[in-house]
Amino acid sequence: MTEIKATPKRPPFVPPSSPASLVAAGRLRAAGVIAGIKASGRPDVALLVGDAAHACAAVFTKNAFAAAPVVVCREHLARTGGRVAAIVVNSGNANACTGERGLAHARAMCERTAALVGCEPAEVLVASTGVIGVPLPIDRVLEGIERAHAELGRDDAARFLAAIQTTDAFEKAWGEARDGLVCAGVAKGAGMIEPDMATMLAFVATNAGLDAETLRGAVGRVARASFNAVHVDSHASTNDSAFFLATGAAPHADRAAAIESMERVAHRLAWLIARDGEGATKVTTIDVRGAGSDAAAEDIARRVARSALVRTALFGNDPNWGRFVSAVGNSPVAGDASRLVCKVQGVLVFASGEPASFDRAALAQAMAADDVRLELDLGKGAGGARVLTSDLGYRYVEVNAEYTT
Amino acid sequence: MTEIKATPKRPPFVPPSSPASLVAAGRLRAAGVIAGIKASGRPDVALLVGDAAHACAAVFTKNAFAAAPVVVCREHLARTGGRVAAIVVNSGNANACTGERGLAHARAMCERTAALVGCEPAEVLVASTGVIGVPLPIDRVLEGIERAHAELGRDDAARFLAAIQTTDAFEKAWGEARDGLVCAGVAKGAGMIEPDMATMLAFVATNAGLDAETLRGAVGRVARASFNAVHVDSHASTNDSAFFLATGAAPHADRAAAIESMERVAHRLAWLIARDGEGATKVTTIDVRGAGSDAAAEDIARRVARSALVRTALFGNDPNWGRFVSAVGNSPVAGDASRLVCKVQGVLVFASGEPASFDRAALAQAMAADDVRLELDLGKGAGGARVLTSDLGYRYVEVNAEYTT
Repeated sequence: MTEIKATPKRPPFVPPSSPASLVAAGRLRAAGVIAGIKASGRPDVALLVGDAAHACAAVFTKNAFAAAPVVVCREHLARTGGRVAAIVVNSGNANACTGERGLAHARAMCERTAALVGCEPAEVLVASTGVIGVPLPIDRVLEGIERAHAELGRDDAARFLAAIQTTDAFEKAWGEARDGLVCAGVAKGAGMIEPDMATMLAFVATNAGLDAETLRGAVGRVARASFNAVHVDSHASTNDSAFFLATGAAPHADRAAAIESMERVAHRLAWLIARDGEGATKVTTIDVRGAGSDAAAEDIARRVARSALVRTALFGNDPNWGRFVSAVGNSPVAGDASRLVCKVQGVLVFASGEPASFDRAALAQAMAADDVRLELDLGKGAGGARVLTSDLGYRYVEVNAEYTT
Repeated sequence: MTEIKATPKRPPFVPPSSPASLVAAGRLRAAGVIAGIKASGRPDVALLVGDAAHACAAVFTKNAFAAAPVVVCREHLARTGGRVAAIVVNSGNANACTGERGLAHARAMCERTAALVGCEPAEVLVASTGVIGVPLPIDRVLEGIERAHAELGRDDAARFLAAIQTTDAFEKAWGEARDGLVCAGVAKGAGMIEPDMATMLAFVATNAGLDAETLRGAVGRVARASFNAVHVDSHASTNDSAFFLATGAAPHADRAAAIESMERVAHRLAWLIARDGEGATKVTTIDVRGAGSDAAAEDIARRVARSALVRTALFGNDPNWGRFVSAVGNSPVAGDASRLVCKVQGVLVFASGEPASFDRAALAQAMAADDVRLELDLGKGAGGARVLTSDLGYRYVEVNAEYTT
């Protein structure tokens, strides 16, 4: 019916090498093993164990049909008030849409880990990612947990990271170490892709001595500006989870600095997830300012981020102000077009209700970058929000339409 | 970077021939002329004129940045209470994001038409579609209106229809004539596509003797089940308008039957618009039932319709219940997954919180149709909603990314 041009050739993205590994926060050991859940034979059970129970807070998917591990984590965190001795993860199977049996499996994973580590089951958290609607091969999973426990080490963050991957095109790790303060994390996720919905999982640890209450107070904001700001395809998975630990290995580290470091690490991991959106060629940061409230700004930023028209324009390096502006207008809180100011890569493209005069060819070239910035100032108030989105290209359609379950 | 397979070959869609033309409602004349707005030299000014002022109601875009013609129509309908002697349309330029000058141009179009027809300017409505952010070549438009008026005829609905097209792949017309009751309409629109955002415009006329108040009471519901139910890409244009006229040429026709006929005609036109979504290979009707309220059902139906994952699965004929179910779960009013029942083409794919057993190959084959039905019953209440969506294939990306403005 039509001839399709191939995705424009660009050099493949190479993620930066992280200056600090997940276990650099101290008082943590990690492992990753092949349990045989994945048909590919790749690592699929991962374990992160503290030398003691550490303070922890987490954010989970807002999808109403949360998977069994998410349900169990919420129970456990409520019971312990945020004390976590271990986190057990499997990839290759999401344990979602699996009914009562799925809950029993998630609990069994925590119980087995607790028995090995010597803690209460409620002090163990659990995450799963992979196919949905298929019961976990629980015997293999439990055996994998045993082997992972036997192999725990202080330098095995790389094996942990390998064992949480599913359809990721590259590994996502980032960390900071400065003046004795360490914050490091790993993540997996690449939008939701075939043959399974790719969950976003993140594990971030600091060596600061933050208590669980402080962590809980911070992670909502941290996640809002990072993992929750990633928009890939209007569709949150049933399993999305981000865990934040404070090991206290550096008990006198500055707490505010620790939270700021956690924010930067989380943002970098979120950027890497957006960069790995299927077929994505860039990450676009949508900054909305001047809205009546932060909530209004977020509504607008998300509408722009999810517009297929906006995302194909970004793929095509097209400074198509009409799409950006009318995507804003789709929000009931958009306000007055005559006050809207729109910039792409710092270049003014729309103001005073009319398009600005700009060098289209030069701007198109500037948009062919790894990082694109779209700024929208509503000129109304002090509300702001930031959302990261991937662009939408042929490869997205290929990945999502051609692989059948 | 990747080789892309071409869109699967399917016979091109041929729209059905309408049994009744727009002017079949009587007491109407139509015209379409080449005014020189479009660089292509195709017809671009259209006129629909009543033998007298007819009752009229209309629905317009909810985009906050409504174009000048929409602003003027709202003013005129408020002033006359729904009395319309003529509708003037131009294609090739949307007169959107054109500031005060754009408003003056839209008013000038009404004034010139009114002078020719011999009515008040407020009795004229106006619609524009085409590029945005560019001032109308108003002299050519006004000259085109003069020529269109000189050519008005009772059999020129086809020329009217030709002159309202922009990027449409085929013309959209449908009508019914039964027992003396006539309802007929034409529409243009195909999602919002490059190089311009394609507005959805519709013109529907019945020969029943409905007054403006009755029409106003009906069109909200009619539009909700038709034009407003079309989801192409999460993005309403600045110019979307649907006009409903009652000419009273058959003053004794049954009014309830007339409104039902209008509903069917509007639904058929909306289906044709969805079918013409860029690269669309089918129209999927998403029926949500058993929700807590109609609003809840609509929220869910729209979330499913706008999910790029759902739409690529539809393109790929993939009965991917996981995507459908988790798209439902994305709504805060989704309720309990264990109550959700999901059917595709009448085949049960998910119930009781778990996937059902079904013949995947047979269902995939059944999904390779012009019409696909996705049923979602939440098992909670009596709320329902229906949304039409196009699928998302390679051609969509091509059309939207490769043409630059």
